[in-house]
Amino acid sequence: MGKCVNHPDRETSFLCMKHNIYLCEDCLKCRDPKIHCKFRSSCPIWFMEKRGGKDIDEIVKEEKKEYTVLFKPDNKEISISEGATLLDAALAGDIPLNASCNGKGSCGKCKLVLESGTGKCEDTPLLTQYEKEHNYVLACQTIVQSDMIVKIPEETIEKKLKIAGMGKEVTARMQGLVKDISLMVENITLELSQPTLDDSISDLDRLKRGLTKNGCDVSRMSIDLKVMRELAAAMRDDNWKVTVSVTRKSCSTEIVRVVPGNGRESSLGLAVDIGTTSIVVYLVDMADGTIVAATSAHNRQAACGDDVINRIVCAEKDGVKKLSRMVIATINGLINEAIDSVDVKRDRIDNVVLSGNTTMLHLLLQIETRNIRREPYIPSVSAFPILKAGNVGLKVNPVAAVFVMPGPASYVGGDIVSGLIYTGFHREEPMTLFIDVGTNGEIVLGNKDWLMTASCSAGPAFEGGGVRWGMRAEDGAIEKIIIDPETFIPSLSVVGDSLPRGICGSGMIDLISEMLKAGIIQQNGKFKADASHPRMTQDGDEKAYIVALAEETSVDKDILFMESDIDNIIRSKGAVYAGFKVLMNQTGLDFSMIDRMIITGGFGQYLDLDKAVSIGLLPDIDRNKFKYLGNSSIAGSYMALLSEKYRTEALEISNRMTYIDFSSNNQFMDEFTSALFLPHTNMEDFPSMKGKF
Amino acid sequence: MGKCVNHPDRETSFLCMKHNIYLCEDCLKCRDPKIHCKFRSSCPIWFMEKRGGKDIDEIVKEEKKEYTVLFKPDNKEISISEGATLLDAALAGDIPLNASCNGKGSCGKCKLVLESGTGKCEDTPLLTQYEKEHNYVLACQTIVQSDMIVKIPEETIEKKLKIAGMGKEVTARMQGLVKDISLMVENITLELSQPTLDDSISDLDRLKRGLTKNGCDVSRMSIDLKVMRELAAAMRDDNWKVTVSVTRKSCSTEIVRVVPGNGRESSLGLAVDIGTTSIVVYLVDMADGTIVAATSAHNRQAACGDDVINRIVCAEKDGVKKLSRMVIATINGLINEAIDSVDVKRDRIDNVVLSGNTTMLHLLLQIETRNIRREPYIPSVSAFPILKAGNVGLKVNPVAAVFVMPGPASYVGGDIVSGLIYTGFHREEPMTLFIDVGTNGEIVLGNKDWLMTASCSAGPAFEGGGVRWGMRAEDGAIEKIIIDPETFIPSLSVVGDSLPRGICGSGMIDLISEMLKAGIIQQNGKFKADASHPRMTQDGDEKAYIVALAEETSVDKDILFMESDIDNIIRSKGAVYAGFKVLMNQTGLDFSMIDRMIITGGFGQYLDLDKAVSIGLLPDIDRNKFKYLGNSSIAGSYMALLSEKYRTEALEISNRMTYIDFSSNNQFMDEFTSALFLPHTNMEDFPSMKGKF
Repeated sequence: MGKCVNHPDRETSFLCMKHNIYLCEDCLKCRDPKIHCKFRSSCPIWFMEKRGGKDIDEIVKEEKKEYTVLFKPDNKEISISEGATLLDAALAGDIPLNASCNGKGSCGKCKLVLESGTGKCEDTPLLTQYEKEHNYVLACQTIVQSDMIVKIPEETIEKKLKIAGMGKEVTARMQGLVKDISLMVENITLELSQPTLDDSISDLDRLKRGLTKNGCDVSRMSIDLKVMRELAAAMRDDNWKVTVSVTRKSCSTEIVRVVPGNGRESSLGLAVDIGTTSIVVYLVDMADGTIVAATSAHNRQAACGDDVINRIVCAEKDGVKKLSRMVIATINGLINEAIDSVDVKRDRIDNVVLSGNTTMLHLLLQIETRNIRREPYIPSVSAFPILKAGNVGLKVNPVAAVFVMPGPASYVGGDIVSGLIYTGFHREEPMTLFIDVGTNGEIVLGNKDWLMTASCSAGPAFEGGGVRWGMRAEDGAIEKIIIDPETFIPSLSVVGDSLPRGICGSGMIDLISEMLKAGIIQQNGKFKADASHPRMTQDGDEKAYIVALAEETSVDKDILFMESDIDNIIRSKGAVYAGFKVLMNQTGLDFSMIDRMIITGGFGQYLDLDKAVSIGLLPDIDRNKFKYLGNSSIAGSYMALLSEKYRTEALEISNRMTYIDFSSNNQFMDEFTSALFLPHTNMEDFPSMKGKF
Repeated sequence: MGKCVNHPDRETSFLCMKHNIYLCEDCLKCRDPKIHCKFRSSCPIWFMEKRGGKDIDEIVKEEKKEYTVLFKPDNKEISISEGATLLDAALAGDIPLNASCNGKGSCGKCKLVLESGTGKCEDTPLLTQYEKEHNYVLACQTIVQSDMIVKIPEETIEKKLKIAGMGKEVTARMQGLVKDISLMVENITLELSQPTLDDSISDLDRLKRGLTKNGCDVSRMSIDLKVMRELAAAMRDDNWKVTVSVTRKSCSTEIVRVVPGNGRESSLGLAVDIGTTSIVVYLVDMADGTIVAATSAHNRQAACGDDVINRIVCAEKDGVKKLSRMVIATINGLINEAIDSVDVKRDRIDNVVLSGNTTMLHLLLQIETRNIRREPYIPSVSAFPILKAGNVGLKVNPVAAVFVMPGPASYVGGDIVSGLIYTGFHREEPMTLFIDVGTNGEIVLGNKDWLMTASCSAGPAFEGGGVRWGMRAEDGAIEKIIIDPETFIPSLSVVGDSLPRGICGSGMIDLISEMLKAGIIQQNGKFKADASHPRMTQDGDEKAYIVALAEETSVDKDILFMESDIDNIIRSKGAVYAGFKVLMNQTGLDFSMIDRMIITGGFGQYLDLDKAVSIGLLPDIDRNKFKYLGNSSIAGSYMALLSEKYRTEALEISNRMTYIDFSSNNQFMDEFTSALFLPHTNMEDFPSMKGKF
């Protein structure tokens, strides 16, 4: 044993025989040439790794103790090395655990019940006395020290998300949205004349001549070296009949593939919405725009935290490649599911549009994200060139053209631009306020003449973070609540018609609105109800309202709504409302001048608008002006997939938007403070709520 | 042992345990997925190869007997497996042997003297009785069957070629040829403003803004995914000071690299002439056009045959990759030599121009060549896009822009276009006949108004092939000869001032001219001199003139000039002259209308013009109209390296040239037949020769 040459605090048994230095496991695995090239290329350990046929992981494994962790209820067995946590084991086995805080031990979501074996657990205040007594541990805080059997408790199991943008009626509505379909990759079949001594131009010139006859402009056409290498064979294999794939770029075209014969199968396209939480894929017949399959799944990056900030932190620690692999694995899984469901060949997919927020798109493309979370919040790239699917890592035709939705800022990304393309308000006269609520609330204000945009960090409360019994809108989430003002007894409606196991965003809004109406809480969010009331309880110092009694739940515990939960939600809704106000102020408008308000995003689909207004999340305007438009990011990518017009428009929108940064905006801070009240400190803003409390 | 699944005639001991099939060594080594993917990806042999840490060569070696061959005079020891030939051993050890026919056993050049050990030799008529008695063998026809010691005889050692385009006075003459230098890759140092909350555009937009301020047009600018990935770090590493490398393409620009700080070292450029026989590299300071180093070497492909046809045959057998590796290894060796000689960093080389004939350029780029040698003789690519050095395999800055000289036809390539750029006659009024003689004679006729071109296959005689004592213009080659008409005793001038060991092209022309003048031969090329003359001898049935007596040579054998040698040379010169005639006829010109005749290429530098006319190689026009311009291919690439004007001109020239194919041209056959006489059957064409024989 010796001390690692790069990390003197680490003892290790790996000795480089050539350089006589010790290296810890991290260093052995590290591929960063800046740190390790001084020995990697020549030393025996590296040699052993490269030439001995063993991956370094195997070598490390041989030297380290291996333990087995059995995860119930699915009885999945995972082997893991000594020193790993239960969360590492779950990640290694692709077992979905809720780990909102990316293993920092601060969210308390990754609960497991230890059934046998020993682990080294850090003490945590995030587990209740009851839980501790019943062998609950936090997966991220428990180091495996023997073979173990653990159970994922009901409340921690990740269930199928209700993902916006899915469903037959949604996809059917899309069809026909785009009339003039224009492909990024065009497959052109040519029957060329055979060369003779009198017509002995080169193969490439013959191909270009054929393309010109077919109406293609070859003056700005390039060709890849790889295609040139295969050209001669491709052109002769089926007697001078070839199919040429040509990608249209912004200012040129490129011959990306030449295959013998009539290889022109009808093209398929892929519209992908990469959400921080969930990913949606539409497989589209490019001939008529039919969505032939739609698939969705959790973004596997969720294992690295719930929100973009945690993802960026994780990327800084482990590299963008890791996060990229996770999201690409998710997308490729969805592609497989889609092509299997309709039994089509992968190679037919040669047009792709990717939409998502700036961080998601950067991570997917392995572009540095660290500056996105640091003032002054700079993305590396706003407008992307057309890429090739093979270079991106998508398992479709490797020469498929990939259009990546441009986004004007670090916190207003391609998903919002995509949303605009779908909603189309930037083409019209009416003054529109657009919001997409998630962890961030991205707001756009404007019409065909101008567009202003901003992002206010709503925080994770609406998606279940920072709220004791908060969860995403999965099966078992309480999504609608009515409280009897006399008895304080709530009527609950639960996603998936199952017993409740937590509260999702729309449920929280209902809850606060109803508690306010029933007089359980005051306008400042503090409890007014007597602590002795049967629906009230105390947890430590903190008062709580009992949303569901243990026996009514699937988790055998009371589902509580704490004062601190209310506080977090008020901060979230306050941030969003302050965002609206500042944008209005900056443009000299007031809410009465808004002709319509568009709400998009997954969160919006369960939202009770009246209740959202009553807590001060949405402005108090004519309810008929509200319009919910679902997952506008996938819808807009679908439109851009089918038409050059919308791809060009996306770039125009991104350039047109004026971005206002709120992070150091004093007006925003003032408005935020004023909004930390239910619905607001200034009741003039909420005329319809006046006198109701 | 069993029969190879792909080659039933081969016994092999390699059994694939998984698929239960036998595979021969070739199949084991073959990487062609079309043939072998059915088991390569999964079978244990492949597995063993990939994972067991052993290269398949090692495995084969273990199973096969290994022999050692010692090559004298350099005492280089080569290990080789049973079944290999001595030529394979020489190739494996990078020992230069002359193997003009690519191991077919037809040229008789790869002679070795066997000193010890046994080999299985095919009987060959290409060795004289004397040679057989003295243990001469042909390397390509001798299979190694034990450890062996062989000696490379003096006459077979490959000596340093006298390569045209080299030498201080040549390169000094180039300087100043190009006034307006314009780079393909421009390195621009920018000091960007630091981003703030009020100026939070993306890194890429900031970079483009900086470029725009610097006068760059960014509207048609693309950027590689790899560069986007590294952008954030590069821009911040030296406080927003960056150096951007931008490649100009025909219709767009591309950001190929961004590095922190002032990374703008002055650019270096590389002009490369890839001849079938030899390769010349100029390393050029792009600031002022100074040639800072010039290096040259044999093209390593020479091991696969002397002429382009043999190279193509070899590529069809072993794949274009093999030939590509050979030429790229030669070029990379020359690059190393050049940068070492002036101690500069490889990365500074970011502009490259490659010139060569169509086959050489195709092979280098791994583009299929098989159709070049098959009627109707079609190249795959005539005009190449700008490539990246890293993709081509050149060891310079991997993002260096590579311009490849376009060529109009399979047998009139980029080297001729390059030659025109240098000579410039296509810009001028005078009617010009241009010839570059080598294995092919490429001819261009025209002026600023029109250009016609053709290629006549002169055959390898002028480069030493098909001539018993023929050799290239290396040390020891007889290059000039005067024969005393009384005594028939020749005065010889030898390359490198050493004892003679063979005759190079210019020597052969002198020889025929002098023998004709002295009456040793008749105008039909047959011997007139008496066989009993002391300078005459007989070898088998054939008469021969003794050019040098054994004691005057370095090879201790008489250097003879055979009747069949004369015949071959007459055929070569006849093809070239017929080429001139047909081009003239096609355009309705006669030789008197030619204002100048430009001769380029290595062969021309030793040429005695009068003698070349006297044997009918060159037309009988005013000798003042002849102009020898050296290696015009390297000179033209040098000019194109320095100026966009010449790069554009190259494409124009290539498009402008009208190519005439001679291969099935009846007129050419008639003219060729008429030219098989010294100087010609029609003496009207050679007025100055009339009455001299």
